[in-house]
Amino acid sequence: MGKGYFDSKNKEYVITNMYPERPWLNYLWSETTYGSVDQFGNGENATFINSTRRVIETGERNLYIKDLETGEYYSANKNYNREKFDVFECHVGLGYQRIISEYKGIRTEFTIIVPKDLRATSYHVKVTNVDKTQKNVDVYFMTEPNANLTWHYAYGEADYDKNSKAIIYTHKAYDCNLPCKFCYLATEKDVYGFDVNRASFKGVYNGYDNPAGLKEDKLYSKGINFNDGYVGAFQYRLSLEIGETWETAITCGVSETQEEIKTFSKLCTSKNFYTELDYQKTENAKYHDVFYLETPDSVLNEQSNVWLKRQLAYGKTWGRGGGKGFRDVMQDITAFCSFDTSLARTRILHALKHQYEDGNPIRMFEPNFLYPYNDGAVWIPSAIISYISETDDISILDEQIPYLSGTSREKSVYDDNSFAYAPYDGTDYQTTVFEHVKRAMDYLLSARGERGLVLFYGGDWNDSLNAVGKLGKGESVWLSIATVKALNEFEQILSVYGKSDLIEYYSDKKQELIDSIKKNGYDTDHYLYGINDYGEKIGSDENPTAKIFLNPQTWAVLADLDTKENLEKLMDVVETRLSCDFGYVQCTPSYVNGSDRIGRMSYFKKGCYENGSVYNHGVAFKIVADCLLGRGDNAYDTMLKIRYDNKLNPNCVVEPYAVTNMYFGPENEYRPGYSPASWITGTAGWLYRGITEYLCGVQPTLKGLKIAPCFPSHFETVKVKRVFRNTVYNITYLRSTENKIVVDGETINSNVLPLGKDSYNVTVYFK
Amino acid sequence: MGKGYFDSKNKEYVITNMYPERPWLNYLWSETTYGSVDQFGNGENATFINSTRRVIETGERNLYIKDLETGEYYSANKNYNREKFDVFECHVGLGYQRIISEYKGIRTEFTIIVPKDLRATSYHVKVTNVDKTQKNVDVYFMTEPNANLTWHYAYGEADYDKNSKAIIYTHKAYDCNLPCKFCYLATEKDVYGFDVNRASFKGVYNGYDNPAGLKEDKLYSKGINFNDGYVGAFQYRLSLEIGETWETAITCGVSETQEEIKTFSKLCTSKNFYTELDYQKTENAKYHDVFYLETPDSVLNEQSNVWLKRQLAYGKTWGRGGGKGFRDVMQDITAFCSFDTSLARTRILHALKHQYEDGNPIRMFEPNFLYPYNDGAVWIPSAIISYISETDDISILDEQIPYLSGTSREKSVYDDNSFAYAPYDGTDYQTTVFEHVKRAMDYLLSARGERGLVLFYGGDWNDSLNAVGKLGKGESVWLSIATVKALNEFEQILSVYGKSDLIEYYSDKKQELIDSIKKNGYDTDHYLYGINDYGEKIGSDENPTAKIFLNPQTWAVLADLDTKENLEKLMDVVETRLSCDFGYVQCTPSYVNGSDRIGRMSYFKKGCYENGSVYNHGVAFKIVADCLLGRGDNAYDTMLKIRYDNKLNPNCVVEPYAVTNMYFGPENEYRPGYSPASWITGTAGWLYRGITEYLCGVQPTLKGLKIAPCFPSHFETVKVKRVFRNTVYNITYLRSTENKIVVDGETINSNVLPLGKDSYNVTVYFK
Repeated sequence: MGKGYFDSKNKEYVITNMYPERPWLNYLWSETTYGSVDQFGNGENATFINSTRRVIETGERNLYIKDLETGEYYSANKNYNREKFDVFECHVGLGYQRIISEYKGIRTEFTIIVPKDLRATSYHVKVTNVDKTQKNVDVYFMTEPNANLTWHYAYGEADYDKNSKAIIYTHKAYDCNLPCKFCYLATEKDVYGFDVNRASFKGVYNGYDNPAGLKEDKLYSKGINFNDGYVGAFQYRLSLEIGETWETAITCGVSETQEEIKTFSKLCTSKNFYTELDYQKTENAKYHDVFYLETPDSVLNEQSNVWLKRQLAYGKTWGRGGGKGFRDVMQDITAFCSFDTSLARTRILHALKHQYEDGNPIRMFEPNFLYPYNDGAVWIPSAIISYISETDDISILDEQIPYLSGTSREKSVYDDNSFAYAPYDGTDYQTTVFEHVKRAMDYLLSARGERGLVLFYGGDWNDSLNAVGKLGKGESVWLSIATVKALNEFEQILSVYGKSDLIEYYSDKKQELIDSIKKNGYDTDHYLYGINDYGEKIGSDENPTAKIFLNPQTWAVLADLDTKENLEKLMDVVETRLSCDFGYVQCTPSYVNGSDRIGRMSYFKKGCYENGSVYNHGVAFKIVADCLLGRGDNAYDTMLKIRYDNKLNPNCVVEPYAVTNMYFGPENEYRPGYSPASWITGTAGWLYRGITEYLCGVQPTLKGLKIAPCFPSHFETVKVKRVFRNTVYNITYLRSTENKIVVDGETINSNVLPLGKDSYNVTVYFK
Repeated sequence: MGKGYFDSKNKEYVITNMYPERPWLNYLWSETTYGSVDQFGNGENATFINSTRRVIETGERNLYIKDLETGEYYSANKNYNREKFDVFECHVGLGYQRIISEYKGIRTEFTIIVPKDLRATSYHVKVTNVDKTQKNVDVYFMTEPNANLTWHYAYGEADYDKNSKAIIYTHKAYDCNLPCKFCYLATEKDVYGFDVNRASFKGVYNGYDNPAGLKEDKLYSKGINFNDGYVGAFQYRLSLEIGETWETAITCGVSETQEEIKTFSKLCTSKNFYTELDYQKTENAKYHDVFYLETPDSVLNEQSNVWLKRQLAYGKTWGRGGGKGFRDVMQDITAFCSFDTSLARTRILHALKHQYEDGNPIRMFEPNFLYPYNDGAVWIPSAIISYISETDDISILDEQIPYLSGTSREKSVYDDNSFAYAPYDGTDYQTTVFEHVKRAMDYLLSARGERGLVLFYGGDWNDSLNAVGKLGKGESVWLSIATVKALNEFEQILSVYGKSDLIEYYSDKKQELIDSIKKNGYDTDHYLYGINDYGEKIGSDENPTAKIFLNPQTWAVLADLDTKENLEKLMDVVETRLSCDFGYVQCTPSYVNGSDRIGRMSYFKKGCYENGSVYNHGVAFKIVADCLLGRGDNAYDTMLKIRYDNKLNPNCVVEPYAVTNMYFGPENEYRPGYSPASWITGTAGWLYRGITEYLCGVQPTLKGLKIAPCFPSHFETVKVKRVFRNTVYNITYLRSTENKIVVDGETINSNVLPLGKDSYNVTVYFK
């Protein structure tokens, strides 16, 4: 049995092995609410109100079928006992998850979405008699709502409300400012029984594989209060003729008032469910239309046309889940701009509210996390450039946006383990977005050490180097290089915003920085990662471990820091020293002794995270760097190495439809190549840009769409459809003996495509 | 099948129905480490280092037997599939828990203790072939150690260390000050296989009823790092002749260094286990010898001779588990003094370090919780009196003990939901214990409002009245009455400590307080609970709900506040207005609308906790009050009402060997009479004192052992053995036409027994 397949027509991945080595996840979200779902449809979801995270359901869900003739029952979405189902598969969709089963003449379809405008998850259950006789069955749905908002169970109560056709969970607590105190589980169809209490539904000593409540004719069907384990369970009694289908919608959500539940529960209909599902499909279809790729590599096509888009769109709103990392959101928006320019604009403006007055952003917002990582500012210009390039909308730079009060140095809290969170602290003081970007650059240029390099403070991209700069002396070579890249982008902003008079100043500053990097930042054959508070080199051949890091080398290319020849040498070193069967390690060899002059990274076990794993965010930087140097084969081979189907890494266990942030590195003693998680990674955005902007070379620029492909040598023909500033470009790439771009039959002298018509047919001849 | 029985000889309760309505708990503890265990031997344990709670195991434990001929396996301690075991019972012991099973010719005994000097739980597994043929079986033990101390799994690693014969779990984290970073699972006997990873042992999609690892010949037997779910599992391969027994010790503990594990693991022997078990038995036997009761009521005998002692001894060290409530510890020590006077002294002195300089203690220590409940000081004199009465050791009053810096008003934090904890803040400033007690009284006398009553601030005994006094105006009638009682006790301390000159001052102050109570604290036929910040009466017939509270009435008796006649009327009101089939409610009728002028209590659902439940701590006060008024029948009937075997409350689900803090009140809409938990309650100490000091009337006083029985009318003969100040009193009570005490054949004129001889035979004739 295979693991599953891409269903290109329906934009689904169909999981056929329902018991992968670890659960395979999908993410469902609106702009207020998100959740993960595994191949069974299980997984926690939560809604955010300002900075408060309100969990809605804790994740356990089951759809049971009981045959009323035999009394036998089973979970149709989990099949605990692994019976021989005729059909058992999970359709991983864009904005939905659908688990389908057929067993003993009953077909079930269990579909899950996060509706657009409710703080809720919606379910749709469809049961069909595919047998040759009439069937009498009970259908049970259960989930675990997060009903106890404080540890005082005595506040809590749950009961079924016939008028609302919903179980209502209340937790009216003294002195409790948590939003959305009410929780509900609404049903479209009438129920035969219900339960709210885990002890009676599941049984005190049973598992969900064998819930006690199902042994009775009818669920307990009474309310409860003072309960430590609530469930929401509905029982429906069906008599199905041959071929007959029954369906119901179910919604589990939260509300501010009990009154609202009356309204919300009325929305719980199959009709509304289908409308929401259509919305998801339509919304995602927009993303597909923007960029469509046909290469000889069908997986590459799937990734770029469908799945990476979805994954990075998650990141542009939700960061990495637990909070919205400023840098994470910024990078994902940079990749997202083409999908929905209006939403991209909104998210950029929202993020920029989280800069201090000195221009430095906080590390994470909603909730606001104050550990003084120092790289936030470098990610701003690229998001702005990406947005303006995509839209030609310079007006974003005129928007007035407030700051967080104070400066980052005043507010810094070096407390990583216990998390120093702060409430939102926006001021009335505001400036233009342009000024926000300028201050970001000024901050980086001012926060420099005795060697002229940008200071580490709490760490940079490498947030596990969190002890290198605590004393305010350690300097980061990588962050200095990244600042050079940011200044390159800022110069474009100055130019397009009519501030060319400032270019010379920033250009001089940039050169100063480049000189410092070259003087103080180079080791035997590569750039250092940095120098810590004690003057000790990080990423040097002087050291017994962590002699070389990946990112300073790749970013030297991204920042165009040197001659092409020197940069090529640098990338040769990357190939020689950092390559492994399934990617490129973040550093080598891994630290083996924790050092309080280095930080977290040095305490991590070998091959974990920054300490020598194949950290794919960094690998995606490397892919872009390869393309910038014209090394299409290297770039493509690197993509293949980190892909789920790399034959040299058969136990990577990663979802085929999602990229992972990490494979344990080759030095890991127990599980080299294993991926513990996916989705929550900046890899998706950078890989998407790597494929579209650098491999295919379809680059939005301020002047228009630039074409600069860098395909691997065995790609002969490639097709791309790109919608850019309301213009459709149908691009065919053909391998040739010359480089030439033909637009609507005319060879053009630029590599920037024309604008003005509704569509263009473009042929790109490449060597 | 019954639920179980008391095995008086072995001081055990034997659970025979292994699936009670909710898990039945036992508690195991040393002075550093504690854990709860249910009838399967499952339950979390933790150790305290200063104020830090370090969980050792999260609670899931299994002992599996696999028949190597058939490949079948089962959990001997849980019997998930409820097979027909020949024997399946749990022996609830004093300081140990033992689960015994016999199935298909294999007998297992699985015993659990918390060893005296290790931060650990120790297990002993005994497997016997009781079949008629030789048996080849694999024995598996598994637990879930709490190995990840931070959320960075990358720090964590676990592997089996052959030298130590232990799995060692490390979590060497950057900037992590948590104590006891190392965890180990040591085995006495050699293992055939082991596992450290939940995913391979249990399986990603399996339950512990059907662990995947057991399907293989050998457990995975490799280490792992970066793991979100560790287990500790050992596999032993046995070949047992007919009648042969195999045994091993296993210890799961934590340590400061990896080096220590070598030492600790060597201690993991069956011999040491038996020594520890003996220690538990010996230690508890001391408690038994101090007071031994024979009445016509065998359950009453079991309670007072064995189980209440154990339960209150838990409280004297561990408070209520999550932290050490000052008032909880003080009350339990008051009841504990006779069991181990030296330990009682230590715990009193330790607790008194948690008074501010103004005499007011914090609510809870280890961790220190700063919510300004105002009743802490009233519990001090009774603990001191109890200790001195038991020992005649007045020197405790001369001990120098420090204070917490500052005053309670300076440090108060009104933040109940998010918990305001503070580090230990002891100063060098110290005084005698006498001064500590005096300051406690001075604090109470100074913290009074405009009506002359003691202020509520954050609440008092009734900590759910936490909004009545936030503005510093609300006054508590109950706390004023309790202060009168404390002053009664303080006068005794003044007298015995040679400070009689101060008695007049405190006596005047007490009278002032009594006058204020009588003037402002009385309603129609009962005492109010208090008056809130807004001048609104709490516990008045003026109100639609909570018209009368239990505690002010019973404490009026305890404080001897009025004439006997008036106090009797008051207790008649209690009988009339607060009685129900299974006890006495804390107030009636329950609040139905949350009020921010009342606090938490008013938001609680009807019949929960202070809001109208049968809160047994209060019921125990009532029992003492009954005895003080000579109402032995009322006292005894009340004991029967709250007992597990009350026929009018058949679904109370409480452990027969432990008292519960609460039965949901009769007004509860869903589960009146139900007890959600046990053990963690001040009921045990007060009920123990109620039975021993008030029903049997064996009262330690400063002058000696006073005899003042108050038996129910059907008790004709009672025997008590009491060891007091190294003197053995063998007391026989005989119902008679006169009250008379005969000691060694001589009638005495006092009700205080003589001291001086090793033992006395006492006959108490009572009407």
